[in-house]
Amino acid sequence: MTPRFSVWGVTGLPEIEPNHDLVALIADAIAAQAKTDPDLALQSGDILVVTSKIVSKSEGMQVPAADREKAIAADTVRIVAERVHPGGTFRIVETRQGLVMAAAGIDMSNVPEGTALRLPADPDASARALCAGLRDRLGVEIGIIVTDTIGRAWRVGQTDMAIGAAGIQLTDDLRGANDANGRPLHVTQAVVADEIAGAADLVKGKTTGIPVAVVRGLDRFVTDLDAPGARTLARTGDDDMFRFGSAEAYRLGYEAAMAEIKAKRKQRQE
Amino acid sequence: MTPRFSVWGVTGLPEIEPNHDLVALIADAIAAQAKTDPDLALQSGDILVVTSKIVSKSEGMQVPAADREKAIAADTVRIVAERVHPGGTFRIVETRQGLVMAAAGIDMSNVPEGTALRLPADPDASARALCAGLRDRLGVEIGIIVTDTIGRAWRVGQTDMAIGAAGIQLTDDLRGANDANGRPLHVTQAVVADEIAGAADLVKGKTTGIPVAVVRGLDRFVTDLDAPGARTLARTGDDDMFRFGSAEAYRLGYEAAMAEIKAKRKQRQE
Repeated sequence: MTPRFSVWGVTGLPEIEPNHDLVALIADAIAAQAKTDPDLALQSGDILVVTSKIVSKSEGMQVPAADREKAIAADTVRIVAERVHPGGTFRIVETRQGLVMAAAGIDMSNVPEGTALRLPADPDASARALCAGLRDRLGVEIGIIVTDTIGRAWRVGQTDMAIGAAGIQLTDDLRGANDANGRPLHVTQAVVADEIAGAADLVKGKTTGIPVAVVRGLDRFVTDLDAPGARTLARTGDDDMFRFGSAEAYRLGYEAAMAEIKAKRKQRQE
Repeated sequence: MTPRFSVWGVTGLPEIEPNHDLVALIADAIAAQAKTDPDLALQSGDILVVTSKIVSKSEGMQVPAADREKAIAADTVRIVAERVHPGGTFRIVETRQGLVMAAAGIDMSNVPEGTALRLPADPDASARALCAGLRDRLGVEIGIIVTDTIGRAWRVGQTDMAIGAAGIQLTDDLRGANDANGRPLHVTQAVVADEIAGAADLVKGKTTGIPVAVVRGLDRFVTDLDAPGARTLARTGDDDMFRFGSAEAYRLGYEAAMAEIKAKRKQRQE
């Protein structure tokens, strides 16, 4: 038995604006595609991968481009690392969604001239609403992943990752399972939600205006609507060994030592 | 026109041992699969995604389990971050392959009892040999990605990434391109090689003994055999804002301040 899956782009979606009904628009676009190829109608077990950009647009997360810096500050929980360059300051921050990324995910491409776009306030809630709406409307048990394009430490470029999810088992947790030789696999927890998000990017693309993809054949990861969301994929607490950039952490250590010396001197003088 | 691709696992490969001819074994396994389903025969434009584990095994990278620590040290260029826990020390290092990962990628699952397995010494060279061998043998222009399972900063778990590649355009470089509205996309460089590696993991899996997958429909990324390899995806130089873990960088800063104070005191005493 050959394990396999396929991925395709949903074409024909209009430019999304505030208060557009994404459930209806996505369902209609898929129905139109299915008219020419019946295989493209949604089935139970399909996973719909939706670019966060259209979710943000339908949720009215546009801000004037002039307010971009203010929006970044509003969506930033803390600054992780920054670097000043001639054109301004490049900042990697932890966002209120629990993501660590450049500029709090606020984007100025694929948005109307003069505007910038914030991430959905709660991408897991957005995913749940989409998932519930499409399941109801079409009578099929599908899963939803909401994605954004995110850079990684130690690698060039970006890949798409899951920032919101509903009806999906996010990881294939192999901790405690056995390998093909029957020996225990210790630390492997494959983040299938990120792997699916990346796969969908290969048909969505950023220059083609295709913001939604369907993944068929990974039914085993489709589950209850109230399964844990993508927020649980964030590692930003005590486990995070890269809470600050190297330059920032170095400076904190340097300043801590200087403060310690100063306090000791003061104590001796008293 | 609906953009689409599909991914399937290559079944029936034997347990790989040193000096096994991977080109022949993979070609034979695919030919056997194609007997029951002719669509599964390799075609020009297909991308073969190969788990580094079987490449390492065929290249004789096994070491006795007792020599695991020695092997980690040998494959480590520098320690990025470490954390001591009751069972030992967890180390994230930069490997001689330019990867930043736990334990220099040395693995003890899916290997025979009593052994550990190092990464291929030069995964890009391994990929080139496989790619050239399969192109010659089968007369089809395919691409090769060699993968390993790697953790990320700020995210739980792991995903598969490209650690070696041949005949593949690794990134979809959109810097300078326009978005769907005709406005310039500034910083987007989608690392399709990592997205393809992750997609393939969804059919390969670590418990099923399927170490090779075929991706069909992404012909546009298949290119000359001598295209830049996956080593170029590493960002480990001056651009790396996370050269050290936060605790390590903090300590370096603290120690630098203390050394500075000590030097000043000494100067005053002289």
